[in-house]
Amino acid sequence: MVVETKSAQFDSIALDSGATLTPVEIAYETYGNLNADASNAILVTHAFTGDAHAAGISHDAGKPGWWDNMIGPGKAFDTDRYFVICSNVLGGCQGTTGPGSINPATGSPYAMTFPVITIRDMVRLQRMLIDSLGIRRLLCVAGGSMGGMQALEWAVSYPDRVLSTIPIATTWRHSAQQIAFNEVGRQAIMADPDWSDGDYYDKKPPARGLSVARMVGHITYMSDESMREKFGRRLREKEKFGFDFGVDFEVESYLRYRGNQFVSRFDANSYLYITKAEDYFDLTNGTGKLAEAFRQSDTRFLVISFTSDWLYPSYQSQEIVRVLRRINGDVAYCDLQSNYGHDAFLVDIAEQTELVKGFLASTARMAKAA
Amino acid sequence: MVVETKSAQFDSIALDSGATLTPVEIAYETYGNLNADASNAILVTHAFTGDAHAAGISHDAGKPGWWDNMIGPGKAFDTDRYFVICSNVLGGCQGTTGPGSINPATGSPYAMTFPVITIRDMVRLQRMLIDSLGIRRLLCVAGGSMGGMQALEWAVSYPDRVLSTIPIATTWRHSAQQIAFNEVGRQAIMADPDWSDGDYYDKKPPARGLSVARMVGHITYMSDESMREKFGRRLREKEKFGFDFGVDFEVESYLRYRGNQFVSRFDANSYLYITKAEDYFDLTNGTGKLAEAFRQSDTRFLVISFTSDWLYPSYQSQEIVRVLRRINGDVAYCDLQSNYGHDAFLVDIAEQTELVKGFLASTARMAKAA
Repeated sequence: MVVETKSAQFDSIALDSGATLTPVEIAYETYGNLNADASNAILVTHAFTGDAHAAGISHDAGKPGWWDNMIGPGKAFDTDRYFVICSNVLGGCQGTTGPGSINPATGSPYAMTFPVITIRDMVRLQRMLIDSLGIRRLLCVAGGSMGGMQALEWAVSYPDRVLSTIPIATTWRHSAQQIAFNEVGRQAIMADPDWSDGDYYDKKPPARGLSVARMVGHITYMSDESMREKFGRRLREKEKFGFDFGVDFEVESYLRYRGNQFVSRFDANSYLYITKAEDYFDLTNGTGKLAEAFRQSDTRFLVISFTSDWLYPSYQSQEIVRVLRRINGDVAYCDLQSNYGHDAFLVDIAEQTELVKGFLASTARMAKAA
Repeated sequence: MVVETKSAQFDSIALDSGATLTPVEIAYETYGNLNADASNAILVTHAFTGDAHAAGISHDAGKPGWWDNMIGPGKAFDTDRYFVICSNVLGGCQGTTGPGSINPATGSPYAMTFPVITIRDMVRLQRMLIDSLGIRRLLCVAGGSMGGMQALEWAVSYPDRVLSTIPIATTWRHSAQQIAFNEVGRQAIMADPDWSDGDYYDKKPPARGLSVARMVGHITYMSDESMREKFGRRLREKEKFGFDFGVDFEVESYLRYRGNQFVSRFDANSYLYITKAEDYFDLTNGTGKLAEAFRQSDTRFLVISFTSDWLYPSYQSQEIVRVLRRINGDVAYCDLQSNYGHDAFLVDIAEQTELVKGFLASTARMAKAA
């Protein structure tokens, strides 16, 4: 299945910060076919550094999508039955308007004059896309990590536009530790002289800072155990400890590789804006009253977490589930056993597939019966 | 109790790498009095960024030592009964020879020509200090984190020179995750252009890189829970989210402060050398046969870990204890309940104090009876 990334453009979008972006563009892909009454559409929302290319083989790069194991004929998000949409988030750098986009008022990239954006802003732009595709109500919004935040935000902001959501490995607000890890990444980027207060688009990008930020990220995406299984203390191309500052251990080589690789595909300013959006995210807008936030919604929920995920620990999903149960919400929950840490929702998909399949089928049945 | 840091100098030290340092200096402090038969000496070994100033108020800076809550009259390491020694590690930057020291052969700082050092090298220099103080056998070697590695190394390298050890919140070798966190710190430093391949001693030090490295460290020293208790999502000097890239959350402000503060007291090259020593550390020299390493030792052990320590998780201490029990070693173990994460051995000391007091008293009794 070769897919092409499409683009939609809108005159403007009003943001939570009070600013307006004029115009705004959104990159997206679709898989499968929208049925006659537009009742089989599922929006898949991506994690921090993801993009619109969730499934199939990309027309240009020839690469499979980031959730290709979950989306396609017969898969969890079965494209024989459902019309699946995935778009790049606002503030991103892969086709949707972000700090690297040209500000039409100046003819130069926005850089750090780009307005601060929130998860709700990302969701607002997704709703505009859904509108333009003629979809009145989504069968489901599903995503992991920051994608899960967007799914939760859909349920709270647009309860009449979404029948069900699947928030995976996520939280209704960032903890101090999650903010701290993001802040280290931001500081690594901003400490790089090549960052130049964000004005690097006609120069060398802050590759070293961005690479260090990504290395920190990778550690938090894996678990102690999955790192041990993958690398242990295996040495890199050496019979003995080298007693130097080259690469001694395979885990070092892997992190450096992933850090450097990331630089070629991601914009440092997008890293700053998107991590801030995660840190600002609070489904209750600071009140802490999660039950009230959910009370206006009769969305169905399938909440999934993973036992070895220490970046978005299971207790954060369980907080959501507990509150939904307390207000008699329609919620299913599973804490899946996995050693893969936070990455589990991307790689350890056998059980997740069964859960998602059943949940989507029952949601579709309920929709038809109603 | 005002204390002064002393210094001892030795002609040379032969290192694991095959190199020799000529001469070598070691900074140390002592608390309490050595008894007539020199049988009451305890060596306290410091963690990664610690120094020789473990207790009392420093003569110069007027600051309390890093384990002042554990060392002193009536405290865990009771200076009314014991003679306590603490020295700065080899490769450090607080009085002991390290990469920032002048190489007498060139008249310039060693910088990256400093030989790679190991935990065993650190312990070898400590043994030279103990020799020079006329101490034939230490009653105990005790330390947390990297200090615990040194304690373990004493038991294995010099079993006839130490009656007991107290390894706290430590491991017999670094896991892939522990190596990964150290590698991120090293990469942050080496990515800073001011690092200049280590030749920055007559210029600006790599302050930004070192600060980022320290920020990562601080996250790993605390627990998810202790960060929540200390910071939660409290905002910094703002009524509302600022929607900018200033400091929004208190945890960000804390990390930046601690990062910047660290730069004034620690040398970036020492950061590189000491973290490599930690990563190379393997009590079995790569054989993985821990029982064999311990079999040559009849040292008593008190092993302590903390429930919320995710940097040096309890299972790593339990591996040590399991092996010692299997070879019928003399080992007591306690996994102390604490929310403070890895920092617990420095701050959550009530139970730790009781354990250490009892263990030292029984060791002293056994020594007298023998």
